Amino acid sequence: MSDSFYKHHVFICTNVRDDGRACCAERGAQRAQEHAKKRMKELNLNGPGKVRINKAGCLDRCDEGPVMVVYPEAVWYTYVDREDIDEIIREHLQNGRIVERLRI
Amino acid sequence: MSDSFYKHHVFICTNVRDDGRACCAERGAQRAQEHAKKRMKELNLNGPGKVRINKAGCLDRCDEGPVMVVYPEAVWYTYVDREDIDEIIREHLQNGRIVERLRI
Repeated sequence: MSDSFYKHHVFICTNVRDDGRACCAERGAQRAQEHAKKRMKELNLNGPGKVRINKAGCLDRCDEGPVMVVYPEAVWYTYVDREDIDEIIREHLQNGRIVERLRI
Repeated sequence: MSDSFYKHHVFICTNVRDDGRACCAERGAQRAQEHAKKRMKELNLNGPGKVRINKAGCLDRCDEGPVMVVYPEAVWYTYVDREDIDEIIREHLQNGRIVERLRI
């Protein structure tokens, strides 16, 4: 419908649950978000026309978490560690290749 | 690239700034997000294949705020009051028509 203000707009769920159910926050989501944001700045990839890394409230896919989603492509990922985040950055955000092994 | 898990995934900036610069939070963003989320439930429009209303951290378009973005369409809006939110819900989320007068 329109050009996207950000080429890739990444939302990382950093939600904290109080009800005992598993949440992204307790699975390293905050660290993942901070790391991804820092990497974008190092790569000079952050900003309009490029990439924005955002925190988000509960994306409601907790059972598959921790989760993130990349728009406007609407590609969802889960991740375990920093290497996974780095692979998503290198493959998807830098080179436009979806990382199928981390896709949910 | 793929079907979107949510038909419309709405991110409403509810960021609070501590540095004195204008932020969405002080312009009614929290109330707007709660209202939109409630309306989606009332309309039975919330959930996979339908609509998700999310809180988000700073979307970095503060000067045009308060802001929200609807993906995967990548349509950005500002809003002043509840009537604006209701118009976006009725026109865009229920009927797929972009509200040009609120678009940024």
